[in-house]
Amino acid sequence: MSTRSESYLVGLIGDGITESLTPPMHEHEADHHGLRYLYRPVDLAVIGRPGVDVGELLRAGRDLGFNAFNITHPCKQLVLEHLDEIDPQARAIQAVNTVLIRDGKFGGFNTDCSGFTRGFEHGLDGVTVGRVVQFGSGGAGSAVAEALLDLGAQRLSLVDMDLSRAAERAEELAARYPDATVEAISAEQAPERIAAADGVVNATPVGMHHHPGAPFDLGLLRAEHWVADVVYLPMDTPLVRAARDLGCQVLDGGHMAVGQAVDAFALITGETPDSARMRAHFLELTGQDTPGVDAPGTVPVEAPAATDSGRAVEGGAL
Amino acid sequence: MSTRSESYLVGLIGDGITESLTPPMHEHEADHHGLRYLYRPVDLAVIGRPGVDVGELLRAGRDLGFNAFNITHPCKQLVLEHLDEIDPQARAIQAVNTVLIRDGKFGGFNTDCSGFTRGFEHGLDGVTVGRVVQFGSGGAGSAVAEALLDLGAQRLSLVDMDLSRAAERAEELAARYPDATVEAISAEQAPERIAAADGVVNATPVGMHHHPGAPFDLGLLRAEHWVADVVYLPMDTPLVRAARDLGCQVLDGGHMAVGQAVDAFALITGETPDSARMRAHFLELTGQDTPGVDAPGTVPVEAPAATDSGRAVEGGAL
Repeated sequence: MSTRSESYLVGLIGDGITESLTPPMHEHEADHHGLRYLYRPVDLAVIGRPGVDVGELLRAGRDLGFNAFNITHPCKQLVLEHLDEIDPQARAIQAVNTVLIRDGKFGGFNTDCSGFTRGFEHGLDGVTVGRVVQFGSGGAGSAVAEALLDLGAQRLSLVDMDLSRAAERAEELAARYPDATVEAISAEQAPERIAAADGVVNATPVGMHHHPGAPFDLGLLRAEHWVADVVYLPMDTPLVRAARDLGCQVLDGGHMAVGQAVDAFALITGETPDSARMRAHFLELTGQDTPGVDAPGTVPVEAPAATDSGRAVEGGAL
Repeated sequence: MSTRSESYLVGLIGDGITESLTPPMHEHEADHHGLRYLYRPVDLAVIGRPGVDVGELLRAGRDLGFNAFNITHPCKQLVLEHLDEIDPQARAIQAVNTVLIRDGKFGGFNTDCSGFTRGFEHGLDGVTVGRVVQFGSGGAGSAVAEALLDLGAQRLSLVDMDLSRAAERAEELAARYPDATVEAISAEQAPERIAAADGVVNATPVGMHHHPGAPFDLGLLRAEHWVADVVYLPMDTPLVRAARDLGCQVLDGGHMAVGQAVDAFALITGETPDSARMRAHFLELTGQDTPGVDAPGTVPVEAPAATDSGRAVEGGAL
C-alpha cells in the first residue's frame, strides 16, 4: 500500500473516548489516499491516568513514532503548556484539539473551530448569522463561539450554568471582536434573546444519550430560527427533532464531528480529504446512512460533537 | 482494508535500528493478509534514551495502544525484568526479542532461536548437524546455540573473545542438553575443532560493513563443511563468499533475519505468514533479488542477522 515515509501513526487522548468515531473516520479516509494509517484511541479512563499526564503521553508518543495526536476533554487546555508552537487561532481560543509532531517538536491547532465553520458553511449556507444564542461556553463552546463570530455574528449571547465562565469568555471575545456584541446571559434572560435571535446553538452535552433533554424550553423555537447542535450521539437530539419538525434550517451534531476530523486529517497528512466521503462514512458508522437523513435540503455539512462540560460530548467531538 | 479490531501497532526497540528491514518486512506481509499494520522503529540512538529505559518504553507503548514490540540490542536481557510472563525457551536462552501486549500484560518470546531453526531446516536441509564450531556467544549467539542443540548438534564448541561469557554459556547449555558436549574454546583451539567439524557458524558482527573481515582464517574451510552466517548486511560476507566458492552448503544471514520476522509476525497476528514471500521481499529490500542469488540449491531458508556483541549486527537481527 505505501512506503514507510508515507505512514501515519495518530492517537486520540481523552477521557472516555474508546468509542469515538474519529479513529475509523481517519483510517477510512486514509485508505482512499493509499496511506498506511493507524489511529489509536488513548482513553485515560481505560489506562487509568489523569488528564495532567497529557504532556507525558505526548512525549512518549513522540519517542514511539507517533506523527500526531487529537486531544479532547479534559486535556484541551492542559496540553497548552507542553507545546512548542500554537496556531494563532488555537491560542485565541486557548484550546488545542490537534497536535502535530514534527522534528521532535509539538505544534498545536484547533480544528473544532474550523470544523464547525466548515459544517456551518456547508449545511446552513445562506442563513443570516446575525443574532445567536449559544448554550455552553466550555472547550467546544469556545471553539463554536469563535467560529460564529468569524462567520459574522453581530450579537452572541452565551448561556452557561457556570455564569462566571460565560462572562469571562464573553469579555475575552468582545475584546477581539469589537464590531460584535458578545454577552453572557442568565438562563432567565434566554427566552427574550431567543425570541429576537436568528439562530440557536447547543454546545452543551444536553441531548446526549447520557444527558437526555434539551438545553432550553423547545417551545421557544420558531420556524425562522436556524438551529445547530454539537451532540452527535444521537444525532437526532430532542432539539434537532423539534427544529426539524418546525421546519427550521438545522445543522446536526455530525457536522462538527466530521468537520474537525476533515481538518485534522488535512493537517496531519497534507492531503485534501473528501469531506463528503468522510461524512457518508460517518453516517454509516452511526447507522444513520439511510436515505432521507442526508437528503438534499438538510444535507452535507460538517458539524458538531463537542460541547462545554460533559466528557462524553467532548469525547464525542473527537 | 480492515476493521479496527484487526489492526496492529508494533515497535522495534533497540540501538541504531532505524534502517532495520524488519518493519517493512512485517508491513508488507500484513498487506497480503489485509491487516492494518504499522511497525515503527524506536531507535534509542535517535531518541537519546538508554537501554535501561526499555521497561518505561514498553509501558508507554501499552498505554498508547501498541500490540507488540520486537526487542534487540542492548535490551534483550534488560527487558526480562519487565515481563509478566516469559516463554520457556526464551527463559532458557535468557533473552527476549518479541513482547506481546495482551490485556495490559507483557509476554516475552524469542524468535531468533526459532527463526534460525526455521532457516536451518529450510536452507541446510539434510546436513549432519553433528560437530559445530560457533563464533560468538552473546544475545544472538545464545539463540543460535540453543537452536543448534535443538537441531541435534552433538558437540558444540563456542569461541568468543569474551572467554568467560562463552564458558558460562557452555556450562548452562551443557546442563540442559546432557546428551551433547558443549564447550567453550579459545581462538587458538578453533583450527583443530574446525578441522573435525561438520559445520561452522558465525554469530559475531564480523563481516558486516562496519566490521569487515572474517571471524577465523577462511583457509580452514573445506568443501565438506556446512557454513552459516548471521550477518545480512551484506549477505555475501567474506565467510559466505569463501564457503560458496568452495562448494560448501551455505546459510546466509538473510535467513535468520527473515525467520525471526516470520515467527514474530505469526505470534503477533495469529496468522500464518508466507515465509517464501517474506524472504523474496527481504531480498528485494536488500537489492539482492537478482536471479541466481536465490537459485535452487542455495535457496529459501530463513537465516541469521543477529550476533554476539555488535549493535549493528544485533540491529541487523531485527
